[in-house]
Amino acid sequence: MKKPLNVGMIGYGFMGRAHSNAYRQANRFFDLPYELVLKVACARQKEPLQAFAERWGYESTASDWRALIERKDVDVIDICTPNHLHAEIAIAAAAQGKMILCEKPLAMNGAEGRRMVEAVEKTGVANMVWYNYRRVPAVTLAKKLIDEGKLGKIFHYRAKFLQDWTISPELPQGGAGLWRLDVQAAGSGVTGDLLAHCIDTALWLNGDLASVNAMTETFIKERKHNLTGKVEKVGIDDACAFLARFKNGSLANFESTRYARGHKALYTFEINGEHASIAWDLHDLHRLQYFDHRDEGQVRGWRSIHVTDGDHPYMGHWWVPGLQIGYEHSFTHQVADFVQGLASGKPAEPTFRDALRTQAVLDAILQSAATQRWVAPEM
Amino acid sequence: MKKPLNVGMIGYGFMGRAHSNAYRQANRFFDLPYELVLKVACARQKEPLQAFAERWGYESTASDWRALIERKDVDVIDICTPNHLHAEIAIAAAAQGKMILCEKPLAMNGAEGRRMVEAVEKTGVANMVWYNYRRVPAVTLAKKLIDEGKLGKIFHYRAKFLQDWTISPELPQGGAGLWRLDVQAAGSGVTGDLLAHCIDTALWLNGDLASVNAMTETFIKERKHNLTGKVEKVGIDDACAFLARFKNGSLANFESTRYARGHKALYTFEINGEHASIAWDLHDLHRLQYFDHRDEGQVRGWRSIHVTDGDHPYMGHWWVPGLQIGYEHSFTHQVADFVQGLASGKPAEPTFRDALRTQAVLDAILQSAATQRWVAPEM
Amino acid sequence: MKKPLNVGMIGYGFMGRAHSNAYRQANRFFDLPYELVLKVACARQKEPLQAFAERWGYESTASDWRALIERKDVDVIDICTPNHLHAEIAIAAAAQGKMILCEKPLAMNGAEGRRMVEAVEKTGVANMVWYNYRRVPAVTLAKKLIDEGKLGKIFHYRAKFLQDWTISPELPQGGAGLWRLDVQAAGSGVTGDLLAHCIDTALWLNGDLASVNAMTETFIKERKHNLTGKVEKVGIDDACAFLARFKNGSLANFESTRYARGHKALYTFEINGEHASIAWDLHDLHRLQYFDHRDEGQVRGWRSIHVTDGDHPYMGHWWVPGLQIGYEHSFTHQVADFVQGLASGKPAEPTFRDALRTQAVLDAILQSAATQRWVAPEM
Amino acid sequence: MKKPLNVGMIGYGFMGRAHSNAYRQANRFFDLPYELVLKVACARQKEPLQAFAERWGYESTASDWRALIERKDVDVIDICTPNHLHAEIAIAAAAQGKMILCEKPLAMNGAEGRRMVEAVEKTGVANMVWYNYRRVPAVTLAKKLIDEGKLGKIFHYRAKFLQDWTISPELPQGGAGLWRLDVQAAGSGVTGDLLAHCIDTALWLNGDLASVNAMTETFIKERKHNLTGKVEKVGIDDACAFLARFKNGSLANFESTRYARGHKALYTFEINGEHASIAWDLHDLHRLQYFDHRDEGQVRGWRSIHVTDGDHPYMGHWWVPGLQIGYEHSFTHQVADFVQGLASGKPAEPTFRDALRTQAVLDAILQSAATQRWVAPEM
Repeated sequence: MKKPLNVGMIGYGFMGRAHSNAYRQANRFFDLPYELVLKVACARQKEPLQAFAERWGYESTASDWRALIERKDVDVIDICTPNHLHAEIAIAAAAQGKMILCEKPLAMNGAEGRRMVEAVEKTGVANMVWYNYRRVPAVTLAKKLIDEGKLGKIFHYRAKFLQDWTISPELPQGGAGLWRLDVQAAGSGVTGDLLAHCIDTALWLNGDLASVNAMTETFIKERKHNLTGKVEKVGIDDACAFLARFKNGSLANFESTRYARGHKALYTFEINGEHASIAWDLHDLHRLQYFDHRDEGQVRGWRSIHVTDGDHPYMGHWWVPGLQIGYEHSFTHQVADFVQGLASGKPAEPTFRDALRTQAVLDAILQSAATQRWVAPEM
Repeated sequence: MKKPLNVGMIGYGFMGRAHSNAYRQANRFFDLPYELVLKVACARQKEPLQAFAERWGYESTASDWRALIERKDVDVIDICTPNHLHAEIAIAAAAQGKMILCEKPLAMNGAEGRRMVEAVEKTGVANMVWYNYRRVPAVTLAKKLIDEGKLGKIFHYRAKFLQDWTISPELPQGGAGLWRLDVQAAGSGVTGDLLAHCIDTALWLNGDLASVNAMTETFIKERKHNLTGKVEKVGIDDACAFLARFKNGSLANFESTRYARGHKALYTFEINGEHASIAWDLHDLHRLQYFDHRDEGQVRGWRSIHVTDGDHPYMGHWWVPGLQIGYEHSFTHQVADFVQGLASGKPAEPTFRDALRTQAVLDAILQSAATQRWVAPEM
Repeated sequence: MKKPLNVGMIGYGFMGRAHSNAYRQANRFFDLPYELVLKVACARQKEPLQAFAERWGYESTASDWRALIERKDVDVIDICTPNHLHAEIAIAAAAQGKMILCEKPLAMNGAEGRRMVEAVEKTGVANMVWYNYRRVPAVTLAKKLIDEGKLGKIFHYRAKFLQDWTISPELPQGGAGLWRLDVQAAGSGVTGDLLAHCIDTALWLNGDLASVNAMTETFIKERKHNLTGKVEKVGIDDACAFLARFKNGSLANFESTRYARGHKALYTFEINGEHASIAWDLHDLHRLQYFDHRDEGQVRGWRSIHVTDGDHPYMGHWWVPGLQIGYEHSFTHQVADFVQGLASGKPAEPTFRDALRTQAVLDAILQSAATQRWVAPEM
Repeated sequence: MKKPLNVGMIGYGFMGRAHSNAYRQANRFFDLPYELVLKVACARQKEPLQAFAERWGYESTASDWRALIERKDVDVIDICTPNHLHAEIAIAAAAQGKMILCEKPLAMNGAEGRRMVEAVEKTGVANMVWYNYRRVPAVTLAKKLIDEGKLGKIFHYRAKFLQDWTISPELPQGGAGLWRLDVQAAGSGVTGDLLAHCIDTALWLNGDLASVNAMTETFIKERKHNLTGKVEKVGIDDACAFLARFKNGSLANFESTRYARGHKALYTFEINGEHASIAWDLHDLHRLQYFDHRDEGQVRGWRSIHVTDGDHPYMGHWWVPGLQIGYEHSFTHQVADFVQGLASGKPAEPTFRDALRTQAVLDAILQSAATQRWVAPEM
């Protein structure tokens, strides 16, 4: 029997489900040194919590996260709360010596994030942030190709995350399921919610950003607030675009919005190198587009790689070539890597420290948009 | 607590994994009247069986399927063996009053299949065949659109299932993982393995076939046989194409091969109706292509529907719009539908009897290829 | 000044326009040994002929093709009439020693076609048939790749030509613009009109067919006839599909219809070889899809080749990489090749004799459909 | 006989060919009130000019543009020279009362452009700038859909023009064929060459820009200069990206580069409106992507419109549905519209004044990049 790794989950929303599934699936598809155990599910609202815990097979429930993090039978705290609670919980959990898996973005801002990094590094607990898209096999393959030098010197990095679900002015802000529209709970709009993903991937694939120049917009200025029942000013950004320069000299163009009719969750990136280019698209996440200038001229073209072969990242653990996996598997991969990182001593990324770099860029973006100037992220 | 539904699994190969995952996932994502329980895993080879059972959490193992089907604590027998064992096990299990879920194709031929149907219908046990592609949400949506009359009179049905994994003459036939290349275990080649899927979908979407006219080919005539160690004649068909006429007057064109370089598991179908057409492709299984002639002329075009919305079949149970699911989910849907069928009294399809229709077409195809004539399936 | 090559055009319909444009364009984009001259346009109906001749700059008009072919100042006769007139005109023009460019299909049937071949070969006049798709650059590139051996042994050839313009039962048959629906003028339906293109390409790319097995259908049995004003039986095939075997051992699957909602002129083909596969599609005629199994495994995928580079066939004569050409250019290329063939002594293909092979396949298809048997084309 | 419209062409390069072809084709495919006549081709280099004039059928040649613009037998002056000569020629030609068709961008900068506008407006001569992409049928259709109100309020406009032909440091700058890399002749790099197209389309489709914020880069700092033979500093921008706000409140994101490996001439734009979105791509210029949120939910998806039907802009003049046209046709359409504008008294756009708006944006972009601030174009 494998040694158990007991998980205490805080939150039961969308991410609570995605993570719970990952904990249940990881040992089925990967050979891991620990057996993941759904020990406790924690939240304030009793009934939905109970239903959640039963559905996913949590051994118990808890209503107070402060009590939870003190429990001896819990090894890992998974923070799936709205953003404004990340810091407090993480810092307290670190003080209790718990491993911490925190939803993204790490924090409400860089200052909070820095305190979180200090907390986990001081006690030396394992920590990781759920930037799950790194572990979509096609994205992991992109990283591998770059690391192998296939692209050569990089000239351009381009990323977008386009959605269309908040176009109606009737949509309220705040409360269950809609806290992402409430600046008090979310900290920012698409910047922290969507661009954070784009930036995490970008820093991972192409290194740090030297400076950014951003523009934000809030198209719908007021919405009914679910927590107060009143029409209130909307504090989040509905859209954000920014130009940037990477430290390696390449140029960047990022954009995110929730007002791009026809795009549900279109996270795309493209990287143009001296020898080759790659492109990816969350709406067809099982494919990677690859162009290699070194191919024979007459048959040169963008290759649509169906990333489902046994020698593609993670895919040897699933089915057979041609049979695609989906969104949720990225979390399963992250759990597997986290557990393997515990055993190997080489922590799975992104750690809190890695995620703090993204947080610094988020701060710089918002500052640039406010001041209409180029801003260098404080790294 | 929900009443348990105890599963006895026979086989631990690729399909054993796919089904085990489905049993584990179904209650997590669907509200079902029974709780699926992985009761026994059964196979002759001890060690791999043990590993399989541990990984998936089966409560016990068994080495003799005859003993298994007599167990009182097993409700459902899942037959994941090579094809030549389906009939014997199913008939025996039916005699024991067990529900039976059988991998496709139903049988080695129509005669066997008919005996299986008789067996399950005589004892009235619930039964189903794992033609899983019906429950890829995009395919289920296709069925819904047809049933709503969106296509009108059907003129054409076209399906292909193209692979490229047996092109090397060095690949042996027979034994673990390669029984599909051994005519003794498989009954036929791509006809029963791949076209069976295409036919099941076609009959479901467009009704029965009146007659077929087929051509088969075995490109590599001899391969080493893993069970004998000798080079032996290859008895299966490497490729099969057939023309057909549906009873509703539409024309059909089917093709399958394992020699189509560049296609891993490219199951595609297209249906052309008077008013609209639809097309689907397993390599991008989360999309349905739809063309509606009634659209305004200047903006008429094939629509690429990203089948991930809450109002798309099954998708309300998963994530949010834009986030795709994969291959394995089709099995989870089938388990969910089977269990709901038990409760509702309206059995989930395809039953053994439904699958027998496909078997009759398979027989007709092979007979047509042998006699070079049009053959009417014996329905 | 270059020596002129005087063209006498018979017909002023769709193909009359396409060819006239080609004659005008060829010397602008290609360095040719002759200057093409639009000498005479010939047809019975005066007014539209006059308008046509003025628009395209024909020096004169004529109403009687028999007089035309006797003119000393005409070098080339271009036959753009309905099919039933091809043979008579071509045989007479050959007797007058004229070069002959004939629209496809060569003839109403193989017997006619053989007499045409005899006629041109007896007098030794240059001759060619307008199977224009060979000279879409992407298709020519396909031929080049096959000739270079990139695909290796061929296993499969698949072609379709799908349209949707005759679905309405209100559409009449016969007369100007609709002679293709009149069996007296066309000889057959989609078989001679559309499959003829598919077969010409196939024989060119993959060699002769050994045998065919076809199915035809006429969905709308009666239509008003424009020439009689009465509702009459429809004599053409609305759809035709056939299986076949090439002499090189590869399998073929062809299909054509005018009842495939959503497809305007979707001529597609795909060839699967041992090492590589290619696919092409008339709706995006400037692209060739190419898959090469010899690519490094992790980055293997279908390449979408944008066939617009200077080293792609014909493309050095047009614009710059990335800027696509269209349908009409295939005719311009054919004119250029014809003229270069005159100078080089290596006749441009397909000649009448080449086109006769296609005609033999068309005969075999119709015979197979009528007799429900495999038929070997009479080559 | 139609009245002639005599063209005097200055320049014989790539654009000289594209325009000459357009003049020759326009009367063949459109019913125009004037017959276009290739009267004079003018350039300093005798031999290539002579070859050019013969190939295209110019009646005569001239070596001095100043003499040319005084000729009574020339109605239209077509300026196909490098950018730095546009203003001088145009102003002089206007003074002679000639109609003027000028290649894009209008001028080296806004100041020059304003003088050109004054010149043509003072004498009232017809004038137009060759922003040809407006007349790709799919782009014209986009304009039509916007004008019909199909998109509703616009939130986002996104455009890119990506190329990859200057990545090699061995490529020289300046001289024939490479003047676009020489800042003295071109004025700027991708900004004036490529973004100018994107901006022209954007202003046409979505109205004026209120302010821009740009970043430029020159990746290769020095190149051999063909005119001096020496390695010299590169003065042009290799890449330029800018954020912007339209006056209608929508946000813009533009980017152009010649360092995007894999893209030959990838001009793309996308517009997201409240109700619908459209997207277009020069590499498949015959298609328009369209998403309409008002479609029934379950079958909502991006439509790929094959813009080749008779009721699509311009397409009734070409072939039949499904048969695509290419790049050069956009110029033919522009010629046809220019001539029809002469007759109707409603001048074809973009006029010099229209193009001056684009020039103002180009100036603002370069100023913003230099000063690292938001800049409002001087309209």
